[in-house]
Parts: sequence; structure tokens; C-alpha cells
Amino acid sequence: MASNRKLGIIAGGGCLPGLIAAACRAEGRPAHVLALTGHADPAVIAAADLPTDWIRLGEAGSGFASLRQAGVSDVVMVGPVRRPSLSELAPDLRTARFFARIGLKALGDDGLLRAVVTELESEGFQVVGIDQVLASCLARPGLYGGPAPDAQAEADIARGIEVARALGAVDVGQSVVIQQGIVLGVEAIEGTDRLLERCGLLARDGVGGVLVKLKKPGQDRRIDLPAIGTNTVTAAASAGLRGIAVEAGAALVLGREAVAAEARRLGLFVIGIAPL
Amino acid sequence: MASNRKLGIIAGGGCLPGLIAAACRAEGRPAHVLALTGHADPAVIAAADLPTDWIRLGEAGSGFASLRQAGVSDVVMVGPVRRPSLSELAPDLRTARFFARIGLKALGDDGLLRAVVTELESEGFQVVGIDQVLASCLARPGLYGGPAPDAQAEADIARGIEVARALGAVDVGQSVVIQQGIVLGVEAIEGTDRLLERCGLLARDGVGGVLVKLKKPGQDRRIDLPAIGTNTVTAAASAGLRGIAVEAGAALVLGREAVAAEARRLGLFVIGIAPL
Repeated sequence: MASNRKLGIIAGGGCLPGLIAAACRAEGRPAHVLALTGHADPAVIAAADLPTDWIRLGEAGSGFASLRQAGVSDVVMVGPVRRPSLSELAPDLRTARFFARIGLKALGDDGLLRAVVTELESEGFQVVGIDQVLASCLARPGLYGGPAPDAQAEADIARGIEVARALGAVDVGQSVVIQQGIVLGVEAIEGTDRLLERCGLLARDGVGGVLVKLKKPGQDRRIDLPAIGTNTVTAAASAGLRGIAVEAGAALVLGREAVAAEARRLGLFVIGIAPL
Repeated sequence: MASNRKLGIIAGGGCLPGLIAAACRAEGRPAHVLALTGHADPAVIAAADLPTDWIRLGEAGSGFASLRQAGVSDVVMVGPVRRPSLSELAPDLRTARFFARIGLKALGDDGLLRAVVTELESEGFQVVGIDQVLASCLARPGLYGGPAPDAQAEADIARGIEVARALGAVDVGQSVVIQQGIVLGVEAIEGTDRLLERCGLLARDGVGGVLVKLKKPGQDRRIDLPAIGTNTVTAAASAGLRGIAVEAGAALVLGREAVAAEARRLGLFVIGIAPL
């Protein structure tokens, strides 16, 4: 997916911004980071070793100016951003105008992110999906590593798909944990790590549960794709789970080989599923 | 709602079994408690001061025998029961026959409880709803106490209804917490207390959120109605919420006066809503 168009990386939390930066370097693609204060991890951004501007979430005005000044053509938004309340946002003029137009109702769900995409494009940037930059990370169907799911695990995955789809349809969460047909937990904004911790405490005796992660139906592929990495596999094992199922062609598996190796080491399955 | 038919109280956790016992005593209605070991609170059951048998969840055979021997005609199921895994259940013969018929798939959701209702009725008992025994506790429309919800709170309630309905349609949860349009948390099996604790930690700056509790669409009124009491109001206040909305005609408000007083004391609204 080599391109010479300069990539603007709008960076939220976690390791993904670093992986994108590494992919750009490997391809010799020019890139510029716009890191979100309070969301992006300074260590990850520093290690990315790219020209960087830091802005607050509410500073859309200076954000657009930074990207334009850096000569960015394409923009990718990566890494979780803790959804702020309006009072935390302290919007600048440009941001306030944006909210005045989309209305406050959209704050807090994908509606907001979709609106941000539209806004970036109205400023002349092309918004691309993480999966276009990191094509090798898009989940493929089939077993990544670990033992194949048995009949109970298959049933739990099916129940997980049903619940995740219902939630996704109202624009909430991407992850659920099911054990022996019991819905142990449903993710809202707390994140997958906390969901797994909680479900570890709620787990029943007998065979363990599964984590199911799907893209929301109708979710724009350019925003907030569900992702797992080796840390997800480790956390799932700590929570007593037997496996992880992610939506093939929609979720990201960060570090295919490392994830497969961790799955084998801990005896969990990691599988790409096609829920449609 | 006076009746002379002997009432069998199948008792799960919390205070509800005690409230039912008190209502029977006040009416002079004969009653017998079948308390579920590991779920019913021994102190509540002891205070109920009624003839009592204790059984494990898997002992349907002796449970039916107890109720029959006590001369019970009507049965009410009250108080949360932590959904067990099959290996925890250790079913007796009668219970195993039941599971062989309904299939294991139903374990863990209302499907199971609906099947238990059918099973009790096939044994000749009439299963009645808590709201038939505690009619005064059924939530009424309108404000119970505290300040009326403002426009933001109304919007949060509307979003909560949308999410709770979607979840309920796949037979999960009854409670969600929304703050300024952001879905802070969604309840699975962890219970409302833990949901509130978690949402307290996840809350954003600015005006607080609301707890919305609805009956699941299609939920049998005789099982597991959503309930709030003064402890719910206190916990909601600790989590920084501004109010609680419960489904009128479906949720239970345990101690109308006390709940209203606690709401006024803490400055939270408690309101019965008609979401249809």
C-alpha cells in the first residue's frame, strides 16, 4: 500500500500510532503526527520519531493549521480517545462552530467521529482507514493460533455475535464476553482491559469464556476499528478465557506472529470469524 | 391484593424476600419460604420468620416436594440469583431431566427463568408476579422525589431507553448509565451496584449522568423485574449521577416514601417513565 502522499497521523492512546509510524518509515512514506494531549502516550509518540504537534481535543483550529502547514494530504485517526464531556473539551472557535453545526447530541458516540471525518474532508484532507495503512494487520478468517474452538466455544461465539451486533446497532461498544452461554460482560467506554478484568472476577466454574470483538454494523471503517494485540491475549488468559474471536476483514490484529505465539503459549485460541 | 392461597416464596438474594414475607403477614396470608443456598441472605430469611426450607439451585426435585408438602398453591420468585455454570449446578435427577428437555443453551439468560416458570406450572403451581403480591411497589409514572430532570437529563434518559431496549431485545441486562449522551456503562451480570461503582470512576466533568432501568421487551412479568430501593439512590449519588429513571408499570420501587425522601435528601431525581 505504498504511497508518497504525506500522511497525517492523528494519534490517540496505545501503541497503534507507533505501528503506523513504523509502517510509514518502512515504506519511506512522509508522515506528521498530531498527538492528542491527555490521550496519546508521550513515550509512544517520542519513539515514533516523527515531526509532531500536540493539541488538545478542543483545538480543531490549530489542528487543521498544523496539518496544512506540514503539507499533509491524507489523514489517519488511530488509537483510543477517551470521549470527553463538553465542559472538559473547552472548544476553540473552530471546534465550537463544528459542534454548533452537528449538535451536542452526537457527542460521545461514533456520530462524533463520523462528523470529525466529514469535517477533515471539508478542510481538504483525505481520511484513510488504518487498514489501508496497515493492510497486513487486518484480521483474516481462520485460526491465528492456539487450539481450535470446541462446540461450547462455538456456541459462546455465536451468542457473542448476537449481543455485540445488538449493541453495535445502537452505537455502543464492540466487545462482549460470554461463558457457557452467560453474558459475563458488555463493553461501553471502559475499554477491553477493564472488561476483561471484571469478567475474570465474575467467571463461573467450568470451561472458560470467550471474548468477541466486532466492528459495529455501519461503522465507518476509517474510525476506531476494534483491535487486539499480544496484551489482549495475555489479559484474556488472566481472566480465565479460552479464546478470542475477532471479525475478519474488520478488526485489526496487531502483530500477527506475536499474537499467534502468545495464543499458543497460553493455550487460548485467537480466531478470525466472518459473522455475516 | 388479599388472597388466602398459600404463597411459596422462592427466595434469591437481597431484601425482596423479606418485603414479600412482611406483605403476607400484613394481609394474614399463609406463606412458605424456599430459600436458595448461596443466593438468599440468611439474615433476611431469618427475619422473615416464616417456615423455610433451604435447597441448592440444582435440587428442583426436593424443591417441588417441599412446596407441595407445605400445601403451597401460588409461587413467587424473588431476589437476584447469580446465574450458575452447569458444573456449579450439580443437578439432581429432576433438575437434569429439566435441562435435558430445555437444552443447555438457555442457561444463563431469561430463557432459563421462563423455563422454570413453565416447569413450576407443569407441577401444578401457579406462578404469580412480585407486582401481584407487592402491588404498591410497582413504579408509577412521574417524579418520586428530587428535582425534575432538565433537557440534558431528558436527552440522556432517551438515549438510555434506546440502549437498554437494544440490549433487552437480546436478553441482556436491564440497566444502563448515560452522561451527556455518553454511554458510561452497560449492565450484564455484574449487578447494578457494580455498574454504578464503575461508572462513578468513568464519569466525565460537568453535569452528571442518569441510571435507566427498564424491563426487557417481552420479559415475563413474573421473573426478575428491575427494582430500586434507597440503596440504589445512595449508590447513584455516590457515582455522581443526577437521577434514576425506571419503567413505570414494570420496575419495582421498594419503599416509595423512603426512596422519595432519599432522593430529596441527595438532590437526585427518581422518576417513573413510560418508554413506549
